[in-house]
Amino acid sequence: MAQTLEWSSAAGAQVPADDRALQRLLDELGRLPGIGPKSAQRIAYYLLEADDETARRLANAILQVKQQVHFCPICFNYATREHCDICDDPTRDRSTICVVSEPRDVTAIERTGSYRGLYHVLGGVISPMDKVGPEQLHVRELLKRLADGEVHEVILATNPDVEGETTATYLSRIIRPLGVEVTRLASGLPVGGDLEYADEVTLGRAIEARRAL
Amino acid sequence: MAQTLEWSSAAGAQVPADDRALQRLLDELGRLPGIGPKSAQRIAYYLLEADDETARRLANAILQVKQQVHFCPICFNYATREHCDICDDPTRDRSTICVVSEPRDVTAIERTGSYRGLYHVLGGVISPMDKVGPEQLHVRELLKRLADGEVHEVILATNPDVEGETTATYLSRIIRPLGVEVTRLASGLPVGGDLEYADEVTLGRAIEARRAL
Repeated sequence: MAQTLEWSSAAGAQVPADDRALQRLLDELGRLPGIGPKSAQRIAYYLLEADDETARRLANAILQVKQQVHFCPICFNYATREHCDICDDPTRDRSTICVVSEPRDVTAIERTGSYRGLYHVLGGVISPMDKVGPEQLHVRELLKRLADGEVHEVILATNPDVEGETTATYLSRIIRPLGVEVTRLASGLPVGGDLEYADEVTLGRAIEARRAL
Repeated sequence: MAQTLEWSSAAGAQVPADDRALQRLLDELGRLPGIGPKSAQRIAYYLLEADDETARRLANAILQVKQQVHFCPICFNYATREHCDICDDPTRDRSTICVVSEPRDVTAIERTGSYRGLYHVLGGVISPMDKVGPEQLHVRELLKRLADGEVHEVILATNPDVEGETTATYLSRIIRPLGVEVTRLASGLPVGGDLEYADEVTLGRAIEARRAL
């Protein structure tokens, strides 16, 4: 596949390394998630046709995000200042912590606008296959945050898959004894979804968790 | 849509400009062709999780492609040396020039492996609506290349659409009097395509241009 993207037709010709600027860009773009050879080519041509400023802004944005973004020492979400914007925000409800696997999950929940509490990013899920246990996750730091009694509820928002459920069960067992309420995101039918196409497990959970109207 | 990608939940909070590194990256990625907000987010997270070297290589590839790639003064394809690799390649057939609209068309034709001649990139097509006439394209330079009599055939490989056909007709009229053979890419059914789903014009052309077997 890489061969078909070769810019030059001079197959086998020895050219100095920096004659390969376009090929290198195609290679680098092709490494990005969701970018195949065709998309890489489309983006490369776009950048070639764009003015220098556009390309410079993109390159700088990439470099700066690596320089400036680090993990918040409280919740392990991405942060550009000392703490992340959510931990720093005085209007957030400090009595609730939503525990997620990755920073992207924070963004997903923030997008709903349904949650005004704090977060705790584990940095993964318990997965014996990948040799990830509680020690590899930010579990100790979570327990420390629960120690001062300010937090009344922990929402376990790991994914509803095997590892996510395992992690949630584990955390629930160690947090409940601390006298903190532990909840889990509801499973059920996706809003706007079609009952006919729901898988059996999801539909089963939706029946078990049915609500009174 | 941009709002839903806002990293921070601290809506309305005044933060210094360089607290927005991630948002800026999302904005810049979102400007690329074929990259929507979801893809931009996926790429941004990938870069955040990748090592610094990966991000640095991508940023450098973007900057270098702009610094090092220019137009070949002979054929107006992209080039990293003085001339493009194809014009520089002594093994190419110098008696044939394939005329295309954009550099990406060169790549498409090179990919086929069916062509061993030279190219000429017009830099667009004749389009009165967009105020593009022959003077705005590299037509004069094409005629100059035909002047020394080395070229025996010009293949007009503009797109089979209105502007492409207009451009091909125009070029054919001015090149034929020079005693150079002028050809056009064949129109017909796509290989592997289904006759039933071909549009009438394409099917009509396929019938007109039928070959003896």
